[in-house]
Amino acid sequence: MKWPQDGEVGATEFPVVEEGQWIRLNVGGTVFLTTKQTLCREPNSFLCRLCQESQLLSEKDESGAFLIDRDPYYFGAILRYLRHGKLILDKNVSIEGVLEEAEFYNIAPLIIIIREKMEKAKLNQLQQKHVYRVLQCQEAELAQMVSSMSDSWKFEQLVNVGSSYSYSSEGQAEFLCVVSRELQNQLKSCDSRSSCLEQVKCDAEKESECVVHPESIVLQEEEILDRTSRE
Amino acid sequence: MKWPQDGEVGATEFPVVEEGQWIRLNVGGTVFLTTKQTLCREPNSFLCRLCQESQLLSEKDESGAFLIDRDPYYFGAILRYLRHGKLILDKNVSIEGVLEEAEFYNIAPLIIIIREKMEKAKLNQLQQKHVYRVLQCQEAELAQMVSSMSDSWKFEQLVNVGSSYSYSSEGQAEFLCVVSRELQNQLKSCDSRSSCLEQVKCDAEKESECVVHPESIVLQEEEILDRTSRE
Amino acid sequence: MKWPQDGEVGATEFPVVEEGQWIRLNVGGTVFLTTKQTLCREPNSFLCRLCQESQLLSEKDESGAFLIDRDPYYFGAILRYLRHGKLILDKNVSIEGVLEEAEFYNIAPLIIIIREKMEKAKLNQLQQKHVYRVLQCQEAELAQMVSSMSDSWKFEQLVNVGSSYSYSSEGQAEFLCVVSRELQNQLKSCDSRSSCLEQVKCDAEKESECVVHPESIVLQEEEILDRTSRE
Amino acid sequence: MKWPQDGEVGATEFPVVEEGQWIRLNVGGTVFLTTKQTLCREPNSFLCRLCQESQLLSEKDESGAFLIDRDPYYFGAILRYLRHGKLILDKNVSIEGVLEEAEFYNIAPLIIIIREKMEKAKLNQLQQKHVYRVLQCQEAELAQMVSSMSDSWKFEQLVNVGSSYSYSSEGQAEFLCVVSRELQNQLKSCDSRSSCLEQVKCDAEKESECVVHPESIVLQEEEILDRTSRE
Amino acid sequence: MKWPQDGEVGATEFPVVEEGQWIRLNVGGTVFLTTKQTLCREPNSFLCRLCQESQLLSEKDESGAFLIDRDPYYFGAILRYLRHGKLILDKNVSIEGVLEEAEFYNIAPLIIIIREKMEKAKLNQLQQKHVYRVLQCQEAELAQMVSSMSDSWKFEQLVNVGSSYSYSSEGQAEFLCVVSRELQNQLKSCDSRSSCLEQVKCDAEKESECVVHPESIVLQEEEILDRTSRE
Repeated sequence: MKWPQDGEVGATEFPVVEEGQWIRLNVGGTVFLTTKQTLCREPNSFLCRLCQESQLLSEKDESGAFLIDRDPYYFGAILRYLRHGKLILDKNVSIEGVLEEAEFYNIAPLIIIIREKMEKAKLNQLQQKHVYRVLQCQEAELAQMVSSMSDSWKFEQLVNVGSSYSYSSEGQAEFLCVVSRELQNQLKSCDSRSSCLEQVKCDAEKESECVVHPESIVLQEEEILDRTSRE
Repeated sequence: MKWPQDGEVGATEFPVVEEGQWIRLNVGGTVFLTTKQTLCREPNSFLCRLCQESQLLSEKDESGAFLIDRDPYYFGAILRYLRHGKLILDKNVSIEGVLEEAEFYNIAPLIIIIREKMEKAKLNQLQQKHVYRVLQCQEAELAQMVSSMSDSWKFEQLVNVGSSYSYSSEGQAEFLCVVSRELQNQLKSCDSRSSCLEQVKCDAEKESECVVHPESIVLQEEEILDRTSRE
Repeated sequence: MKWPQDGEVGATEFPVVEEGQWIRLNVGGTVFLTTKQTLCREPNSFLCRLCQESQLLSEKDESGAFLIDRDPYYFGAILRYLRHGKLILDKNVSIEGVLEEAEFYNIAPLIIIIREKMEKAKLNQLQQKHVYRVLQCQEAELAQMVSSMSDSWKFEQLVNVGSSYSYSSEGQAEFLCVVSRELQNQLKSCDSRSSCLEQVKCDAEKESECVVHPESIVLQEEEILDRTSRE
Repeated sequence: MKWPQDGEVGATEFPVVEEGQWIRLNVGGTVFLTTKQTLCREPNSFLCRLCQESQLLSEKDESGAFLIDRDPYYFGAILRYLRHGKLILDKNVSIEGVLEEAEFYNIAPLIIIIREKMEKAKLNQLQQKHVYRVLQCQEAELAQMVSSMSDSWKFEQLVNVGSSYSYSSEGQAEFLCVVSRELQNQLKSCDSRSSCLEQVKCDAEKESECVVHPESIVLQEEEILDRTSRE
Repeated sequence: MKWPQDGEVGATEFPVVEEGQWIRLNVGGTVFLTTKQTLCREPNSFLCRLCQESQLLSEKDESGAFLIDRDPYYFGAILRYLRHGKLILDKNVSIEGVLEEAEFYNIAPLIIIIREKMEKAKLNQLQQKHVYRVLQCQEAELAQMVSSMSDSWKFEQLVNVGSSYSYSSEGQAEFLCVVSRELQNQLKSCDSRSSCLEQVKCDAEKESECVVHPESIVLQEEEILDRTSRE
């Protein structure tokens, strides 16, 4: 790749375009202006061959622009990619439209970037979107526990399991509280399980000015087994 | 169809436009540039006849472009279709607007594609959007079951059915957990029932480091009948 | 109306524009090209009078286009309407902007179409968005009933009404299940009540391979009264 | 204000622009065409002064357009406002961008309109979005009540309060049903409380073909106190 | 910074551009018009150096515009920033696209603004989105409490904790009501806890015409401890 890396372009090194390097393209009626250097970033593309063998491939319009019988709207993203090496699209723009053009102009690395992005978007729809945890507490702790739910956890449901534990909690009802957290797309690959347990715990500990029953913390697997064997 | 298939266009075979093939269209004030080859992809269209019998059908402006008294904005999608054979639209674009133009220019296969897409969108609104399942477990398994809910299932509700089973579960309360899954549009035609049952099961089995009660798996029809007869 | 009806425009009858019929409009700096025929679809409009009494109403720019001191962006929808008789707008476009122009140009039928569309959008926000039903079943049927919920119904809540029916169901708990369905805007005017009951019933009958208790069907008014009197 | 009122512009009184009134503006490279009359709707604006003291304020380009070093994209809304006195924006357009321009051109009434709109949008985010009501009924009435929930009310939760009322309802369980209604922004200023109670009541009365228990109507304050004292 | 502050630009001080200050830029085929003053707001930028050392850096097109081989679409936001010092983007515009250009033209303060905005957007996705509170009341107060829920609070769930308190409430069932409030992004930095408690309280007090039990107010930490010790 010949594009500058992020932050590499500084005040002292702006690209100077040599004379005779400017190229005009008339894509479907809209004129674009660029340079041979940009068009030849991808040596195998139709655009690079156009610069080199232009007489063979394409007529020019009256202003000297190469005529190309393609859509101008999605061509913007193609030229953008050749200029800085990134796929940049507004939120409403059809990525399929850019793929069509990338395939026509034969820009292999851009085709790969687009296909990966489309694949990712598809997977995100199919993948897990929430994780769930069950918190347990006695009635007296309930308001405190619900009020101090840590970042990004969402309340789902409170279940009164009162009578079955009556002997162990001095007459107080016990509750299970189901909570959920939306999974961030960027976090889906790492181990989200352990980190979110961590987060709930820390948050509960910060609230040190009031009594928090140890059982009001997320039930972990070992604890479940412990509890089960104790009973 | 004369369009190249996906991936067929390679570096060695870019379309060479013969001299005298370029056509300018002035659609409602906006000039488009294309070729006879593109306009005649659909031989029965107004655009193909324009190339062949232009003197009869349309005046030209001072730049030699055929004058067409239609909307230029939605014409982009028409020309795009004639260039690569696909309907490409940004998310905010009115498909009805493109249909109007496709009908005016008499491009039969595009009309079919648009109508199918509109029909599909309508059906998706009416069709089933969620599937639901009921999971069953004892209280000690609850936190584990909720925490290990498999990909793309969403928690709906936990119901304490405690007392009615008290004899069979050594004093523990039993719970029903209603879960749902959003149906992906692309999956709606296949048998989504069996595949999602599969998925829930597999996921539960992966969690092999802790005891999972067989009853915490999705209740299938046979199991329901079994359970009912046993009681 | 003089517009062709849907599907009426065929390959043999494309509109031929007579010489001297083309009109250029310079709307706020943007040039539009159309015909006298289009502009005079609405004889009472400013645009029709412009064609007929142009010397009186408007200066022309150097290219011979009539100068109009109005917004060009929302004028596209006006011209579109005059060309095919339909209001076509992209999803993000302000309908109020088009109304302003329709009023300025005095295009009465388009004003009516826009106002009806705005009125409809307002009503849709105020109208009923969901219908609700209550399904009843015994615990053994629960998983089956929830899993076979028919198209477009959404689970809302399960309520254990167990003990009050204990004598009539051989010790099994009974449940009420509240379900909802989003109302489609296009269906709101028809009798949605009866059709959705129908739908739930049919779906339950299709699942003929397993025993479905008649009581697991939506409770209808008569049944409620029946049940009450029987008890 | 000198703009025509809604509906005032009729076929007989289209604005005739006198000769020499047309003004070209080159805003950041884009040419707009308008009239002195439009630009001077706001006498204190930069645009009005430009018409009157143009030699002092601004150079012209080769086409005779006044050069203005500002953004052309958001200038469209400015000119629109000067033409008809309304703020018209597409849904995706940044209102902050229009405010910047309104401030630069010193169009005081437009600045006020924009700021009020921004303030309103902010308030809407902070204000109450739902109202809630609690409906009460016996089990036999439940299906009927849920099925006949009136327009725009949404089911939230059903609570079985069964045993505590057993003496007063001949053995039937009693239920509380929490319902909600989304507040329409335009209704937030009026007394939404009383009107929605009205609506639920009327709807229940329309269902006259079946027995509706008076207690299944929304509990009002007086009724609550009544019930409490009776018990 | 040399931009005028908000409200500082008045009718008496419009920017007068000296002769010879106007600069034309041909960015990728689109012509922008601006001034040396605007381009040199950032002395270290490529655009400022272009004005000063233009012969060295860039060729001009036939209209005298400096040729720049970059994307014109995202350049609008760059020029906007140089004109008024703010980052203004429509809702659908890719901020990454503007960042690419800000980095190319080396406009350091704009790069910082963009990166901060992107960072903020990322944080908002990860941060807490709701706060939860638990309200407590007796059955007779329930309808009143739910109906008078104050601004922006949302009902989550009602839990019947009836029997466990039967001795203290003269036979009435007691309920816990979980409510939530969406956090406004702009409020997240201040202490949202105390202020929302305040809000719920005030609202309840305004409803002075009916009896509101002191226990129906949000349970605060001290009260929880009080209640616990009393029991």
